[in-house]
Amino acid sequence: MATTTAGMAAATEPHRSSAATKATKKQHIADEPLTRHNWYKHVNWLNITLIVGVPIYGMFAAYWTPLQWKTAVWALAYYFMTGLGITGGYHRLWAHSAYSARLPLKIFLAAVGAGAVQGSIRWWSRDHRAHHRYTDTDKDPYSVRKGLLYSHFGWMLLKQNPKRIGRTDISDLNDDPVVVWQHRNYIKCVIFMGMIFPMLVTGLGWGDWWGGFIYAGILRIFVVQQATFCVNSLAHWLGDQPFDDRNSPRDHVVTAFVTLGEGYHNFHHEFPSDYRNAISWHQYDPTKWSIWIWKQLGLAYDLKQFKSNEIEKGRLQQMQKKLDQKRQTLDWGVPLEQLPIIDWDEYVARAKDGQALIAVAGVVHDVTSFIKEHPGGKALISSGIGKDSTAIFNGGVYNHSNAAHNLLSTMRVGVLRGGSEVEIWKRAQRENKDISFVSD
Amino acid sequence: MATTTAGMAAATEPHRSSAATKATKKQHIADEPLTRHNWYKHVNWLNITLIVGVPIYGMFAAYWTPLQWKTAVWALAYYFMTGLGITGGYHRLWAHSAYSARLPLKIFLAAVGAGAVQGSIRWWSRDHRAHHRYTDTDKDPYSVRKGLLYSHFGWMLLKQNPKRIGRTDISDLNDDPVVVWQHRNYIKCVIFMGMIFPMLVTGLGWGDWWGGFIYAGILRIFVVQQATFCVNSLAHWLGDQPFDDRNSPRDHVVTAFVTLGEGYHNFHHEFPSDYRNAISWHQYDPTKWSIWIWKQLGLAYDLKQFKSNEIEKGRLQQMQKKLDQKRQTLDWGVPLEQLPIIDWDEYVARAKDGQALIAVAGVVHDVTSFIKEHPGGKALISSGIGKDSTAIFNGGVYNHSNAAHNLLSTMRVGVLRGGSEVEIWKRAQRENKDISFVSD
Ligand code: HEM
Ligand code: HEM
Ligand SMILES: [Fe+2]
Ligand SMILES: [Fe+2]
Ligand SMILES: [Fe+2]
Ligand SMILES: [Fe+2]
Repeated sequence: MATTTAGMAAATEPHRSSAATKATKKQHIADEPLTRHNWYKHVNWLNITLIVGVPIYGMFAAYWTPLQWKTAVWALAYYFMTGLGITGGYHRLWAHSAYSARLPLKIFLAAVGAGAVQGSIRWWSRDHRAHHRYTDTDKDPYSVRKGLLYSHFGWMLLKQNPKRIGRTDISDLNDDPVVVWQHRNYIKCVIFMGMIFPMLVTGLGWGDWWGGFIYAGILRIFVVQQATFCVNSLAHWLGDQPFDDRNSPRDHVVTAFVTLGEGYHNFHHEFPSDYRNAISWHQYDPTKWSIWIWKQLGLAYDLKQFKSNEIEKGRLQQMQKKLDQKRQTLDWGVPLEQLPIIDWDEYVARAKDGQALIAVAGVVHDVTSFIKEHPGGKALISSGIGKDSTAIFNGGVYNHSNAAHNLLSTMRVGVLRGGSEVEIWKRAQRENKDISFVSD
Repeated sequence: MATTTAGMAAATEPHRSSAATKATKKQHIADEPLTRHNWYKHVNWLNITLIVGVPIYGMFAAYWTPLQWKTAVWALAYYFMTGLGITGGYHRLWAHSAYSARLPLKIFLAAVGAGAVQGSIRWWSRDHRAHHRYTDTDKDPYSVRKGLLYSHFGWMLLKQNPKRIGRTDISDLNDDPVVVWQHRNYIKCVIFMGMIFPMLVTGLGWGDWWGGFIYAGILRIFVVQQATFCVNSLAHWLGDQPFDDRNSPRDHVVTAFVTLGEGYHNFHHEFPSDYRNAISWHQYDPTKWSIWIWKQLGLAYDLKQFKSNEIEKGRLQQMQKKLDQKRQTLDWGVPLEQLPIIDWDEYVARAKDGQALIAVAGVVHDVTSFIKEHPGGKALISSGIGKDSTAIFNGGVYNHSNAAHNLLSTMRVGVLRGGSEVEIWKRAQRENKDISFVSD
């Protein structure tokens, strides 16, 4: 597993792969189009071996390795621990400083985080900060705009030009002795925590060295990697966007289940330094629960939390945005200023002539096609024809619903001259602006 | 069951009970307060016997009556048919004219509707129209404002002053021969369709006369009555109000299941002449499905449907109303016109003095308490202190999220004099209005 380490931490810090080092003078391979002739140069063969090759070997080996239930339980438990190293340690503690941790907790998280085999804290957090700062742009190391599979692990299986990734400030991490130590000794850490430690438990515990290697080692690493990769793929692809829909992050409970609680990702991108991903205490977020327990134990402190006022403001604005978009797709009737002006006498005359015109609030409506559909009956609606039915419509006979008012406005055909308010407004407009009114 | 008829149709048309007839000269009993001494005068003993007493008898009798499975299936089927008589016939066809029906369908609906034993079409529809027109007021015959149980069946178990019920136009029903015939022959209809017909089926079919009487007769009537009563109680009490929250009607799927689809009652009160109660074809509304099938069979026509444009307008306006209410409960920062005006030099001086002030878009913000919580790190936010950080904040260094803009506005402490736009606006206001500005 030493090479995994090299492949994911050393190989990308500062130059991401030795190929890149050589290529600094000429064009980087990642900037050349992928063709039938150069595709093998684009592939990061080391990472493909580690992320795809080794697990395949593990699955075959598992076929011949009996799974003891103790080993199964341990593999599962260690999956949770190492996953938590990434979500609670790498992600929320170091990349986002969503809380502070005392030394023992830091050492624990740095250790199990290494056991998840996803690079050093320093490398991981730097890329992750770039992902937040440049989300969905070319400077985002795992932009979902390049495809779901690219954001999942394509970005590791293909070579990348390290210069493309956005720059971020990691001075705080460089000041953290645990981060620096883990980065320097990453290869040792990953071999010990990824493979040796889980084997020691099963081997010394119940003599199952080989089962520990396959199940709690290789296959557990595979699962925890794939699960964590989902934060970059699934969480940018599946679900709702209650806070901001300009970028790709999304909220979904399925993602939360797969990723130890990192599923409320639209919230997370909007409020990245909140130690929670799911706001309500009961929403599935074991990482948040763990941090909360560490706080009770005195291991964590300064848990950051955005004020609910700010969170609700964001949610409200996004809803408002959706409503405004929706509003534009609906028909709200001809605007008053586009309607012809009709004299009162003409209105009455046309109604007498048999046109089903009803004046409400200074506006004339043609209700011909609605008479026989009127929920209040033909007789009542007909009684309003040719009159000023404002009061009748607004409670004099029946206080019509909001729906009725909406419907009424789609039936507008003219504005009454001398319709008090409306008329004054119309005249004012006529005097100021160059609008010609059709008087029919 | 003859008396049920009398109790529910004749007894309330035109005077609702013989007691009422006598009371026309003096005060009606319903208008006297209910006391320890007169409570028995308030009770409608006939209806209590029929709606509560008979079903209790039925339950005891059922204890000694074996239930044959054929009888059970028939009782259930007849429950659906008679329920449909009320929902598809009495309610949507006659009370709301939501569609038109050919004679055979009308006769069928009038017959099975009578079998549900809830009064004649004419009486039922008149009350129901009053319920829609005067919803939640004293003129509403079953106003939920008088209590859930009152709206369920209290209004039938206690005597009511018939004059209290709002008047409605039922001229269309008086023109419908089926309605008139059923009203005139209601007692015969209800005895035959409520009891004799269901017994004939079980008796002639498989010799279970007594089972037919108890299960398909008495108990089935009880169930279909209680289910339909839920439209007046449950549908005005349980669920959401997506279209209008000024009155009591509510949408809930549970009510829909209980009432053959009459559960989307907020929609229904807003769009009463729509033949649907649940808009989407797949939402549980067997009454709507039946009407649609009758249309395919040529038995129903002119199915009325509000335009989706109108429905969505209503939904949107209600959401907007909720959003506006929510908005008022949140803190959006001190309004600009209430902030003191600060000179640029003073701003710079105070920042030099150690106050963490940042100017963005002409407004000065005190970020003291936020510096160490800044998701972008202490260094970056500190770099904006004492400068015009408008561009830095808006993308120059980092294009802050909507959440960040919201948060920033809660940190406002002053407006810059000479802050271009803002300043012009301030000066204009100073010249026109009588506002005194605090310059600190
Ligand atoms: C001007 C004379 C009118 C009178 C006296 C009148 C009366 C009534 C009455 C009494 C009802 C209640 C029916 C019930 O729920 O049983 C009603 C319902 C209704 N009327 Fe009118 N109406 C008039 C004009 C109009 C017009 C011009 C429209 C056109 C939009 C309209 C649209 C509606 C609608 C949509 C309902 C259903 C219930 C509601 O949405 O409030 N009415 N009307
Ligand atoms: C004026 C100088 C500032 C600079 C250069 C700056 C820079 C940054 C940067 C680079 C990030 C991205 C961090 C990441 O996602 O990894 C960030 C995030 C953030 N900053 Fe600032 N910031 C400044 C001022 C402020 C101020 C005054 C506020 C106060 C509201 C603020 C609120 C935030 C918030 C809430 C975030 C989280 C991500 C977001 O909501 O966009 N920043 N800032
Ligand atoms: Fe993300
Ligand atoms: Fe993150
Ligand atoms: Fe209702
Ligand atoms: Fe209704």
